[in-house]
Amino acid sequence: MYPPTFENLILELHKLPGVGMKSAERMAFSILGWSDDQQKQLSKAIADVNKLKQCKICGNLSENEVCNICSDTDRDHNQICVVQSEKDLYAIENLGEFNGVYHVLHGAINIPKGILPDQLNIPSLEKRINSNVNEVILALDPTMEGETTAMYLTRLLENQVLVTKLAYGIPFGGKLDYTDPRTLSKALSGRQKEKPE
Amino acid sequence: MYPPTFENLILELHKLPGVGMKSAERMAFSILGWSDDQQKQLSKAIADVNKLKQCKICGNLSENEVCNICSDTDRDHNQICVVQSEKDLYAIENLGEFNGVYHVLHGAINIPKGILPDQLNIPSLEKRINSNVNEVILALDPTMEGETTAMYLTRLLENQVLVTKLAYGIPFGGKLDYTDPRTLSKALSGRQKEKPE
Repeated sequence: MYPPTFENLILELHKLPGVGMKSAERMAFSILGWSDDQQKQLSKAIADVNKLKQCKICGNLSENEVCNICSDTDRDHNQICVVQSEKDLYAIENLGEFNGVYHVLHGAINIPKGILPDQLNIPSLEKRINSNVNEVILALDPTMEGETTAMYLTRLLENQVLVTKLAYGIPFGGKLDYTDPRTLSKALSGRQKEKPE
Repeated sequence: MYPPTFENLILELHKLPGVGMKSAERMAFSILGWSDDQQKQLSKAIADVNKLKQCKICGNLSENEVCNICSDTDRDHNQICVVQSEKDLYAIENLGEFNGVYHVLHGAINIPKGILPDQLNIPSLEKRINSNVNEVILALDPTMEGETTAMYLTRLLENQVLVTKLAYGIPFGGKLDYTDPRTLSKALSGRQKEKPE
């Protein structure tokens, strides 16, 4: 019903996550009302994404061969935090509390789906481990896949380096009686000695 | 924190209506995972929007000088439905019940905001009215601006042509006691003789 150029824009926007046909239509009309320059800026921003590469050391998003974090000499390169995705990396990075480096697996082991260690960024992690590295922190999702990956990595690396894992438990602000049994069980088994702050 | 190219994409997507920073981030990561071709398609669809023009007869979106509706000889060109926006045009068009033509005002009269008849697509509407045109249907929003515009157009055209207005009243499926007083008042004053269908 719309002119094909406009219909096409709606269909393309509809491919974005969480964008239904109605929202896509609304976005398309909004873009239509933008200046030529504004339209070009959005169009170019999308086209430019293919300039981004994976850092050849850690697999993080990067504009250069080596990402900003890996090339930062002020960081502790002997503490490696392993994450499933770039999103997870930035979630930790935004805390502003971690000064080590990262390793992005780009997924997790999933046997039923046929995702095996070799298809993930695991071989390059193994190569990074040398006698200087003193800790590998596993910051993986507390899911079946995340746990499987954590177990695999622990067995792979524990003889060469200290392997630690994020603490799982009741989220801050959560209610004990609303906590699901698995989380509660993890919180109980992972209980720690209370220490005054 | 993200590489500038990626940060820029997030900020650009954030300019779309209804897209907060979190959704923009999610969209950006989704686009990052697309193939080069898919990225190019979306980018091109946005850039192509500036190819769209306004139909020189009715002001509708068009890829050519004259839009598909105005160039359709099967339609009744003597019945003109006046709407505020292309969105409204397509809302009526999608009913599949109207076989006349349209006129898009691109807004409504808004004295406080300084939007006067001359800044709207009204002069060209006046020029379209000739002795063959037998009805102008005002399909404007039931708002202060829409009503003002309707009143202005009625006075402007009523000596030359029959001017009608969409019926306002209780929406189908609505509840009488939940209807706001203005709508209820419109429904009462606009009451019609009951006729068996």
